[in-house]
Amino acid sequence: MKLVADNIRITKKEIQNALDQRNPGPIQALARQCVKAGAQAIDINTGPLGREADQKMAFFVQAVESVSALPLLIDTANASAMAAGLKAAKNRTIINSISLEPRKLEKILPLAAEYGCDLVGFLLHPDSRVPKDQDEQFAIALELVAKLEAAGVDKGRLIIDPVVPPLVWDEGLSRSRQVIDTIGLLPDLLGFPVQTIAGLSNLTTGALDKSKKSLVEGAYLCLLAQAGLDYLMLDVLDTHLVDSARAASLLTREEIFSWELV
Amino acid sequence: MKLVADNIRITKKEIQNALDQRNPGPIQALARQCVKAGAQAIDINTGPLGREADQKMAFFVQAVESVSALPLLIDTANASAMAAGLKAAKNRTIINSISLEPRKLEKILPLAAEYGCDLVGFLLHPDSRVPKDQDEQFAIALELVAKLEAAGVDKGRLIIDPVVPPLVWDEGLSRSRQVIDTIGLLPDLLGFPVQTIAGLSNLTTGALDKSKKSLVEGAYLCLLAQAGLDYLMLDVLDTHLVDSARAASLLTREEIFSWELV
Repeated sequence: MKLVADNIRITKKEIQNALDQRNPGPIQALARQCVKAGAQAIDINTGPLGREADQKMAFFVQAVESVSALPLLIDTANASAMAAGLKAAKNRTIINSISLEPRKLEKILPLAAEYGCDLVGFLLHPDSRVPKDQDEQFAIALELVAKLEAAGVDKGRLIIDPVVPPLVWDEGLSRSRQVIDTIGLLPDLLGFPVQTIAGLSNLTTGALDKSKKSLVEGAYLCLLAQAGLDYLMLDVLDTHLVDSARAASLLTREEIFSWELV
Repeated sequence: MKLVADNIRITKKEIQNALDQRNPGPIQALARQCVKAGAQAIDINTGPLGREADQKMAFFVQAVESVSALPLLIDTANASAMAAGLKAAKNRTIINSISLEPRKLEKILPLAAEYGCDLVGFLLHPDSRVPKDQDEQFAIALELVAKLEAAGVDKGRLIIDPVVPPLVWDEGLSRSRQVIDTIGLLPDLLGFPVQTIAGLSNLTTGALDKSKKSLVEGAYLCLLAQAGLDYLMLDVLDTHLVDSARAASLLTREEIFSWELV
């Protein structure tokens, strides 16, 4: 289970300011922290970016890459900015994300073919509704695979995100458990070892108590690891989460136990 | 998943001394700490007890019960002391433990019928060898059920302990994962919702780094909860473990999420 830092987000004021002023310092500082904390990939969540979107994206990617050789997930719904980011990047890149939303299939999916990169696909209906049960999730997963193949993208490039629900939602608890099941079942259902990703912080959206958030996320990530998740998006600056993820990865992998206990 | 304190052990010098001097103070103090920390049952691990075993056991049980109304697991291989403990106890009691070892089947199993209590059964060969694979585990589980029924003990009283291995053992990691699978599969295999228990601290036997022990145990208990474990024996004075167990229990039960997040 690879750890993807979800820390670099435009919704943070200092990151927005750094971008507006084309000042790489705060972006570099945060990226360095993520690397040091054990990130194995970095998500760059830029939002739609508005004016000069392409330039801003290129600047953003270069700022992060100036201090990190880790793979980047580029997280924007702006197809032009996505292309600018993929073009600017030297590190391995992953498109984050597409779904069955027609605009994304039309504008963003072809970039995976053009730039030869993996891409995250959300299990959401074309109108972004959350599927109501596992049957709907599986139908969407099959449809995503079909869309990739139609676009000339190898299905092995797909990284499915089953969309972790906030626990505070109606049926948030049972849905969060269903996500675990879905991750475990997808490879068999699709007939190939499809990659999977999950955004951990979604689980506790709306929760105010920081230590409880971390505990609940820490328990949930163990279940994700057990289900065979490939990429975990999380706050890598939360030491408890990173330590728990490492322990969970070691316990759930068929490998020699490399983390010295004695 | 109910939390069983494994803290009250004769191997602790202050507990051994308290017992030798029939001084309930240190036993009561530790039992109070366990209750306060969130224990839902208390294991009293007395060892064989030597001279005046019956008296010592009765004293031990009464010392704990003077400050706690929690169920007690009585943990001794001395059948006479076990009987003395069951007789002295006012709280609900659980026999910990039997196995296919002939002496235990002959001397301890009948006490479950006599005192009408649940009992822990280890998945070990009659000579206490650890089964080499899951088939052997299942064969032993079936044999335990047969032994209970032959002794007139309802099979619903059985609490199976699949024996968590130390990670530092040969194949400790794959065996520890097999324990998770076994717990999940036992109810289907046996054809009734058999209860299960696991001793968490076994996992890190031989490990010296306290914080790593806690992290690895914290991740493993999430997997145990996910597999449907009924009783978790652990150091309840380790706050990280208790908090993780609560979070894991909440995430893995089909119940309304009662732990307020907001």
